[in-house]
Amino acid sequence: MATYLITGASRGLGFSLATALAREPASVASLVFLVSRNTSTPQIAELVGQSKGRVIPVQLDPNVPESLRAAVEFVGTRVQGKGLDVLVNNTGVMRFTGGKVGNLTSTNLTEVFHTNVTLTQLVTSAFLPLLRQGSRKIIANISSTVGSITLGPVFSMNSAHAYKISKAAMNMLTMQYAVDYKDEGFTAFALSPGWLRTDLGGPHADLPVEVGTKEVLRYLKEAGPTFNGRFLNIHVPGWEDAPGSNRYDGKDAPW
Amino acid sequence: MATYLITGASRGLGFSLATALAREPASVASLVFLVSRNTSTPQIAELVGQSKGRVIPVQLDPNVPESLRAAVEFVGTRVQGKGLDVLVNNTGVMRFTGGKVGNLTSTNLTEVFHTNVTLTQLVTSAFLPLLRQGSRKIIANISSTVGSITLGPVFSMNSAHAYKISKAAMNMLTMQYAVDYKDEGFTAFALSPGWLRTDLGGPHADLPVEVGTKEVLRYLKEAGPTFNGRFLNIHVPGWEDAPGSNRYDGKDAPW
Repeated sequence: MATYLITGASRGLGFSLATALAREPASVASLVFLVSRNTSTPQIAELVGQSKGRVIPVQLDPNVPESLRAAVEFVGTRVQGKGLDVLVNNTGVMRFTGGKVGNLTSTNLTEVFHTNVTLTQLVTSAFLPLLRQGSRKIIANISSTVGSITLGPVFSMNSAHAYKISKAAMNMLTMQYAVDYKDEGFTAFALSPGWLRTDLGGPHADLPVEVGTKEVLRYLKEAGPTFNGRFLNIHVPGWEDAPGSNRYDGKDAPW
Repeated sequence: MATYLITGASRGLGFSLATALAREPASVASLVFLVSRNTSTPQIAELVGQSKGRVIPVQLDPNVPESLRAAVEFVGTRVQGKGLDVLVNNTGVMRFTGGKVGNLTSTNLTEVFHTNVTLTQLVTSAFLPLLRQGSRKIIANISSTVGSITLGPVFSMNSAHAYKISKAAMNMLTMQYAVDYKDEGFTAFALSPGWLRTDLGGPHADLPVEVGTKEVLRYLKEAGPTFNGRFLNIHVPGWEDAPGSNRYDGKDAPW
């Protein structure tokens, strides 16, 4: 029995994860907080309606301190003193530079960093007290192997420069949560869900969103202290030795 | 004979590097562009006066597009069609969080990222055409081993969280320059100068600024294609097996 909070959950991987968690028995996921700036969509209404009260939409704009405070208070009320078990920082944007990194504008870099890193920090720090009350204390940050500095040459054809920079930065943020809160029993890790056919990943991505969702869900259920400070990659049979850049081999990705 | 441009050069490592380059024979450093937001200091005036025209101050605020354009035009005029050989991105700020990463504010994170990464990008992209005309095409980004995600646990006592995040991000920016411009003969690398007794490093740092300067200078002189996409660490005899975190072993640092 665990409570989950997923950001950026109105669509894509976040929504798919919330849906998958809602299908698990209540012994696995007792409550799923579906967080988004916009929670008023027919899909969310349908999921919430079918979930027998287990999926709870939380409207949140983390840029607004009052919105963040209200969301934390709301979640705190719903978990009734048992805290939050698993925080999934899934909010993210990606933009292509259009050419080489010399063409990357400060606006693109600033905006992508803000959404992918600063908002992750704002949300994580705000929910830290509730996570501290939880039994699992999991912080799962949705990263990407394209954010691996080591793999830079492998992903040379991908011109989402700001995205890669933001994910390397998010990986360092993750590592610092892993280091600073280990003694309190927290587990913080980065997780690459694969290149998925979502609004962010586009129609030519490697995998249907369900495949990545299944793997992310598996990791979230397994997560514990041995995951702390790691950069996990999903495992998809047949993709372990992919000739291109995306090896979904289930091994830790290099930073 | 090479031309150098050093940012953040009004003090600290940047000023020390400009001073050291000015002491080299003109066959090593024919011109040294000392770049800073404020170039009107007695120390800079003295260095420039003693340099026989080889150290040239360039006032630049990279946040202001017109300032950046004017600086590039000015440098272009001075190198007389021979381009710029070595760009040293040394501008950087560091702030401590005060406690664990959960206390890191969005203001701290945003400001440190902006100075250390976004300004580096603005300067690098603006000087790219002049670097392309140069014979060496070196982009040396002053990073830090505390920006190594791998070494996160080793530097757990250092609460400069935003600085670490910004340096990991800057490392990814560096990697992308290394990947995107390799075919044009560019060499882009990250270099950790050591923890130096400067305004940024503070009085309790490991090494006098001269020790780091000497090592950085050595790398800048040696730099060529074999350096591309690497994360170099200085070598200081006696520090190779330091029990703490700072091993100045001259080996590549892990990302």
